[in-house]
Parts: sequence; C-alpha cells; structure tokens
Amino acid sequence: MTKETKIPKEHPRAESLRVREKLLEHYNMGVVAHAGLIAHGRGEAFDYLLGEKTTEPALEAVKAAAAALLTAKHPVISVNGNAAALAASEIVKLSQVTGARIEVNLFYCSVERKKAIERVLRDAGATKVLGIGEDASARIQEIGSERRRVDPRGILIADAVLVPLEDGDRTEALVHMGKNVIAIDLNPLSRTAQLATVTIVDNIVRAMPTLVRISEELRTENKEKLKEIASELDNKRTLGEAIDLINQRLTKLAEKGTYISLLEMSKI
Amino acid sequence: MTKETKIPKEHPRAESLRVREKLLEHYNMGVVAHAGLIAHGRGEAFDYLLGEKTTEPALEAVKAAAAALLTAKHPVISVNGNAAALAASEIVKLSQVTGARIEVNLFYCSVERKKAIERVLRDAGATKVLGIGEDASARIQEIGSERRRVDPRGILIADAVLVPLEDGDRTEALVHMGKNVIAIDLNPLSRTAQLATVTIVDNIVRAMPTLVRISEELRTENKEKLKEIASELDNKRTLGEAIDLINQRLTKLAEKGTYISLLEMSKI
Repeated sequence: MTKETKIPKEHPRAESLRVREKLLEHYNMGVVAHAGLIAHGRGEAFDYLLGEKTTEPALEAVKAAAAALLTAKHPVISVNGNAAALAASEIVKLSQVTGARIEVNLFYCSVERKKAIERVLRDAGATKVLGIGEDASARIQEIGSERRRVDPRGILIADAVLVPLEDGDRTEALVHMGKNVIAIDLNPLSRTAQLATVTIVDNIVRAMPTLVRISEELRTENKEKLKEIASELDNKRTLGEAIDLINQRLTKLAEKGTYISLLEMSKI
Repeated sequence: MTKETKIPKEHPRAESLRVREKLLEHYNMGVVAHAGLIAHGRGEAFDYLLGEKTTEPALEAVKAAAAALLTAKHPVISVNGNAAALAASEIVKLSQVTGARIEVNLFYCSVERKKAIERVLRDAGATKVLGIGEDASARIQEIGSERRRVDPRGILIADAVLVPLEDGDRTEALVHMGKNVIAIDLNPLSRTAQLATVTIVDNIVRAMPTLVRISEELRTENKEKLKEIASELDNKRTLGEAIDLINQRLTKLAEKGTYISLLEMSKI
C-alpha cells in the first residue's frame, strides 16, 4: 500500500481501488510509466461502463485467443509495465500452458524499466524473458522510434502475439507483418481494439486468469478443432456487441440514478 | 515536455495529448498526485465519448454556474492538483470576475503539495490563496480524515463552492452543509455529478475559459435575473442529456468504424 490510500472494505468500488493500488505499488517500483497510470484510468472508465465483469462477447474472444495461441508455431506474449503489474503470474502460467514466449516490449522504453519488469516476471516464476537490453536487437520497419526494437527470438518471428494493453500504432504494425494479434483492451472503439485479429474487451485482471483457464481446457483438443474455434470468431461482431452492452448499461444506469434520461422520458 | 513524449502535430489526438503533457509536467513539479493521473485518464475516456467538445447541456450548466457564483455572498473556488495544473490562470480570472476566493483543498493532502499548488496559482496571478498550512484550521464534520480541514475564511463560510474535479464524499458533505455546489466532472454518472447543485459535464480545459467568459458577460446583469438563471437549471435533466449524447455518439462511432453495431444491424 502506498501512503496515499486506505481502502475501506465496504467501499462500493473496493475491487477497482485494490487494482489501482497494485498499479501504484508497481509505479513506485519503476515498473509502470506515468502514461500507464493515465491509461489505467481510461480503462477504469470503460470497465465501469461495461459493468466490471467479463461479458459474453469477451468470453467468446478469450476462447478464440486461447485457440490461436495453442495452434501458433511461435506464440509470444508481449509484456508492458501495466501488464506485468496486474497479471505477472497469469502471464507466466499462460506461457507454460501455451508454450508462448514472454517478451518485454515498451511504448515508453527505458533499460531500467525493462529490467524492473523482468524482475517482476521472474519473481512470478518466468524462467526466460526476451527483449531485455541487447536482446532486443531486431527492428520492425513499420514502427518508429524505440518501439520497433524487438527480440529476434520473440516478436520478430512470432505468428501470434498477445498484446495486453497495447497502443494502436504497434498493433497496426504487427497486423501488417501478417501476425495474428490478440489484444486485451477495455475500449472497444480504440484503434488497437479495431485493428487486432482478436480483441478481448475486458479488464486484464479478469481476462488473463480466464485465458489461462480456457487454454488449459482447450490444450488437449485436436489442432483442427482449435483452428476452427480461432477462425470462427467475428471480431467486428464482438466489438459491436461490446458497444451495445455499454449503450444498454448507460441507459440502465441513467434509469437507476436519481435522474432519468431524456431519451427514455420521450418514450413515456 | 517530459522526456517521455513527443507529440506529432498531425496526431489525431494531439490536443488531448498536449493536455496530458501539461498534467505530467505538473506531476513532476509535485502539484498533481498519482491518483490525479488515473483520474485524468478516466476523464479522457468520458471526454472521448462526449466528442471532446462543450455540449449544449454543458453550456447551460456553465450559465447557471456563473449566475450562482455572481449572486453568492461568499463564493469559493476549491482547487486541487489537477485543477491547478490545467486551469490556473482561468481560476485566477474567475476569482477576479466573480469575487470568489481561492482555496486549496486536497483529497490526498500534503503540506508540500499544497505549497506547490499555491506557487502555481500565484504564478498565474493569484494574490490570496486560502487553505495553506495552518490556515486550514476549521473542520467539516461530515468528512473523514484530512479532507475535512478547510479555511474558516473560505469553504467553511462559503454559500457557493466551485469544485472542479471533486470526489463524491466531499461533494456530498458540502451539499449537506447547505452550500450550492458547482462541479466540473466529465462523468455524468459519478456521485459528484449526481449530487452537485450544478454539474458542468465538460473538460476543465474547455469549461473554465467558458465559465470566465460567461461570468464576464453576466456580471452586469441584475441580481434577480441572475438568481432566475441559476434556479432555472434542472441539473438532473442536463445530466440525462449528457448520457444521451454519449449513447448517440457511441452508436455513431460504431457506424463510422470498421464494424457496425449489432443493434443497428438488427434494425436493417
């Protein structure tokens, strides 16, 4: 706990505050960037609008994601500060279940932060972490600046990349390189959400344990069946469903509140 | 600019990124708290959903807010880190136009941060800043912890308090004390938004200059007319209108995107 906060158990948003607390702890450890705190706040808003639970379309996307990772030749989990802070042990478990490699790849890159993230991952049980220091020796042509530095044993040769909490430019570049990109993004309207092959519109703290569990369930399935599951997903449809869920929930929240929406009034 | 970011001019979200940059600068100056960065992210999400412009219901609320401040006996502007970072000169201007006192009052209180905020306000032209150090000698009974410390010349005796970016508990306490509470909050569903007397659902970087301009326009009006403007606002209705605008915009965004919403498909 930082000295800033104490969360009363009965607080209506206790779980959300505990997650925030975990993020701030890792911010103080040099794992999370400033921008990661702001990004987390954006996620909180969309999570609230989605009802802070794993929705049916998110679960469908998780199944397709698990199938895509299990059938990939070189699956990779791309890890940034927020992902390490909120889901390090699930990242390690997912890596064990699917055989995916773990690579640290940052939007705001610094050697210190990469090392801090590596420590968190190793503490969570990771035995091999790609993309640290000189290991990120390859370049992705499609992306500018430091973000294009990737590990030649990881993202460079990957055919499926899980990018929890990624930005639009990188997602686009990875898709252009012909990779299957699996995103975890609470904003169904973001460029990442729209550009990814599979988008799990859910909070990483719920999506990752679910992805681990479903991957465990599916790993004994035959490859053909898994490929079918992965290709059956209509990502645009699941995104549309997520937006509709937000719309429906906003209407419900407006009704439950102390006021009612004008739109509803006009229907009365 | 921090070393973390460089904003390309042609970036579709350049204005939003510039505001974020300003906030991070003030974070580095000790003005903004960690939690302020997360809160800003939440605001960004709602601002995006509202179309990043001052909506018609927000403008109505600004007029009522200006009228309420101009007719108050002891108007006070309550300033926190994010407000000082993003709107210091407008806070000073509004204080000059309406005669409102400026008081620093923080959710996450520290003497250093209060002093850093005072410096920002004085640099912006403030001659008197309440609530600093021992000046915050009065206690509001309704609120726990450090947040109840207020200045006996400011919030304690205020009949109208402008609280940009305030939390729900404090808003509730101030309303219970019988004060007119004017909130600036991008989330129309937040407790602050719902509990305040007047809620301006807008980004502080747009709302504050607008509030200054409208206060200047209205300050020559007679008091009776101003009281009428202030009392005419139906806050629950403007909140309902803001929610409907988000609903409408989500539907439009879904249509404009690479996918269309299922709800819309079912209507075809």
